[in-house]
Amino acid sequence: MAGKGNDHQVVVSNRIRLARNLATAPFPGWAKPDARKQVLDRILPVVEALPEMKNAFSKPLDSLTGLEKRVLVERHLISREHAGNSSGSALVVNRNQSLSMMINEEDHLRMQAISPGFDLQPAYQMLNNVDNVLEGTLEYAFDPKLGFLTSCPSNLGTGMRASVMLHLPGLVISEQISKVISGVNRIGLAVRGLFGEGSEAQANLFQVSNQTTLGESEADILTRLERIIEKIIGHEMNAREKLIEEKATLVQDQVGRAYATLRYAHVMSSKEALNQLSLLRFGLDCGFFQESIPDPMDLLLMEIQPAHLQLLAGEKLSPEERDTFRAELLRKKLQSLPEPDIQGGDASLRESLQTSKRQTRPQSPTPSDDE
Amino acid sequence: MAGKGNDHQVVVSNRIRLARNLATAPFPGWAKPDARKQVLDRILPVVEALPEMKNAFSKPLDSLTGLEKRVLVERHLISREHAGNSSGSALVVNRNQSLSMMINEEDHLRMQAISPGFDLQPAYQMLNNVDNVLEGTLEYAFDPKLGFLTSCPSNLGTGMRASVMLHLPGLVISEQISKVISGVNRIGLAVRGLFGEGSEAQANLFQVSNQTTLGESEADILTRLERIIEKIIGHEMNAREKLIEEKATLVQDQVGRAYATLRYAHVMSSKEALNQLSLLRFGLDCGFFQESIPDPMDLLLMEIQPAHLQLLAGEKLSPEERDTFRAELLRKKLQSLPEPDIQGGDASLRESLQTSKRQTRPQSPTPSDDE
Repeated sequence: MAGKGNDHQVVVSNRIRLARNLATAPFPGWAKPDARKQVLDRILPVVEALPEMKNAFSKPLDSLTGLEKRVLVERHLISREHAGNSSGSALVVNRNQSLSMMINEEDHLRMQAISPGFDLQPAYQMLNNVDNVLEGTLEYAFDPKLGFLTSCPSNLGTGMRASVMLHLPGLVISEQISKVISGVNRIGLAVRGLFGEGSEAQANLFQVSNQTTLGESEADILTRLERIIEKIIGHEMNAREKLIEEKATLVQDQVGRAYATLRYAHVMSSKEALNQLSLLRFGLDCGFFQESIPDPMDLLLMEIQPAHLQLLAGEKLSPEERDTFRAELLRKKLQSLPEPDIQGGDASLRESLQTSKRQTRPQSPTPSDDE
Repeated sequence: MAGKGNDHQVVVSNRIRLARNLATAPFPGWAKPDARKQVLDRILPVVEALPEMKNAFSKPLDSLTGLEKRVLVERHLISREHAGNSSGSALVVNRNQSLSMMINEEDHLRMQAISPGFDLQPAYQMLNNVDNVLEGTLEYAFDPKLGFLTSCPSNLGTGMRASVMLHLPGLVISEQISKVISGVNRIGLAVRGLFGEGSEAQANLFQVSNQTTLGESEADILTRLERIIEKIIGHEMNAREKLIEEKATLVQDQVGRAYATLRYAHVMSSKEALNQLSLLRFGLDCGFFQESIPDPMDLLLMEIQPAHLQLLAGEKLSPEERDTFRAELLRKKLQSLPEPDIQGGDASLRESLQTSKRQTRPQSPTPSDDE
C-alpha cells in the first residue's frame, strides 16, 4: 500500500462510528423522558453484557459532573452538543477506551471504535462484530431499500462514519493545505478540524471522513477513504522532503522555537500549546531527537486540554490559572526529555524522515465528528 | 545619591561630546575639499600628539571600507549621517575606545568620551582635560557672549551634549514609559532610541540627553541631567518591584521565552535579537541566573549588529544569511551559559533585584546622538 510505510508519521488515529435505532421507539430528539428511559432500559443491559464491555465504565450521563463531561468531550467520547442534553442518556466505554457506546445521543445507539494508525480494518471488524451480536437481540429500525434509519438523513443507509485524523504540518508550512482540502472535498469527503464539524483546524490536525452513507457498501466507503488517505500521506511526505531540502533552516527554526517555548514559557494558552506541540511532533519526525521520547500528540490531544488540566489540578482553575498550570506541566515534561539536536545537514534530515524516533503509542483516541 | 545603588542595573553607559571649530576656517559643511584638507592637517597632528591618544587608532575616513564604517556606526564612534560624506574627515580613537575624536564631521572637531555606568564625571574630566590642552594650540571659534560657535545653532554655547543610555524594561512592560518620556521632555531633556535622533526605541533602551547648550554652564547641565537620571532610575526600580510583586508570572514568561528563543531559534532578525537580549538582561537583573554570566548588553550593542556580524563571518552576508548566522551565534553563546532558574517565589525575586549576578562590564560604548 503506497504511503503505508510513513503512515505512522501522518496518521494519528482512525475512528468508525455506527448509528443505530430501535424500530419501536421514537428517535431521541422527539422522545419524551419516559420513552428515552424505556430505550435506555432496553439497550443498556444488552450493551453491558457484551464480552467486549467486560469491566467497562458505564454511567448515566446526568450522573456526571460538568467537568467530567468536558473531559469526555476532550477525549472525543461524547460530542459537545450532547454533553448538555443528557436525561436518559448513558455512556459505556471499554477498559482501553477503544470501544464506546452512547445511548440516547442523537440516535438510540451510537457505537464508536477507535484504533491507532491508518488501518481502518481493526476498528471496523470490532464494530461489525458487536453490531451483529446486538442485532440478534435488539430490533433495529431498518428499511430494505434505504438501509438503517437514523435521526439525521445524512446518516441514512449504512449509518457509518469513518474518519481518519491526519497530522499535516508539511502541507500547512508549505502552504499547500487549502489545495489538498479542496481536492478532498471535491471527491465527496469531508475535512474538519480537531473537534469535528465547524471546528477550526488547530495543531495542523485534520480529520478526513466520508460524507455519504447511502448507495455504497461499508467496504466500498472504507476503501475509497483509504485510497484518499494514502494520497494525502504521499502529498504530506513530499511536502516534508521538499521543505527539508529547500527550507531546512525554516524547519529548524520553527521546531527549535516550539521546543524552546514549551520548555521555558510560564503562560500558555491551549491554542498556542496545541500548535507548539504539533511542531514538536514534526521535529520528532524530522529526527531532531536522538533518543526515543514520548509522542507529543498524547499531551496535545489529552493532558493540556482545559478539562483534563482541571481534573489534574484537582481544583477549579480560572482561564489565567489554567494557562499558568499548563505552562508548568509542559515545562516539567520537556525538562525530563533529552535535548533535541536541531542541526544536521539536509541529507541527514532527509534520512531521518524515514527513521523517526517517536515512541509508538499503544492507543489514542480519535476526535469525534458527530453531527 | 538616591537610586545610585541600582544604577548598574539601569544605566548602561554615558557619553559626553564637545563640538569645537577653528576660528579661521569655514565650517565643514561649507568648506571646499582644499579647506577641509587644511583643517585636517591643522588638527590631526595635535590630536595624535595627546598623551591620551598614545597608540590610538587613527584613520582618514575615506580609507575605510563601507563595512568598516558601518562597524564604527554600530559602535557609536561615528554617526550614520557622516559615514558617507568623508572626504577630508578622520577618526582617532584611543586604545580602549573611551575617547574618540572626529575631524571634519559636522564640526571641525568633535570629541567624545564614553564611560560605563551613571557617573558623568570621569567622561567630563577626561574631555575637559583634553579640551584645555587642545585650546592651547588650536584657535577655537569662540564668542564671549555666545560661547563656542558650532555648525548647528543647537550646539552653540557649551558645544556639549551629555547623554546617558538607560535600560528601562520595567517601565516598558508596565506601560509607564510614555508618561516618563513626556515628563522628561517637558523639563527640556531629549529622549531618543538606540541609534540617536529619530531612531526607534529598541531593546528597551533609551538615551536621555540635554537639549540646551546655551545659558547654562557645563556643570549645571550635568547636574540637572544627573538629577533626572536618578529619578528615572527610581521609577524603573519601582516598576520592576511592582511587576515582580504583582505580575511575577508575566515576567518569568517573558524572560523564559526570551532565553528559549535566543537559545533555540535558527533565524533571527536584528530587531528580534535586540528585544530578546534586553529581556534576558532584565532576567539577569531579576536574579534568574544562579551563576555569573556575561552581560547580554555587550552582545546586544555590538556583536549581533549587522556589520559586526559580517566582520565576524569574514564574508559578505545577505540579510537572510545574517539572520541565520546571528541565530547560530546566539545559540552558541546561550548554550555555553548555565541554565536560568526562572522559578522562585515573589520574595526571592524581589530580593534578587538587589543582587543581580551580572558580570560588571569593564567598558562599553554609548550610542551617539549626534545631530
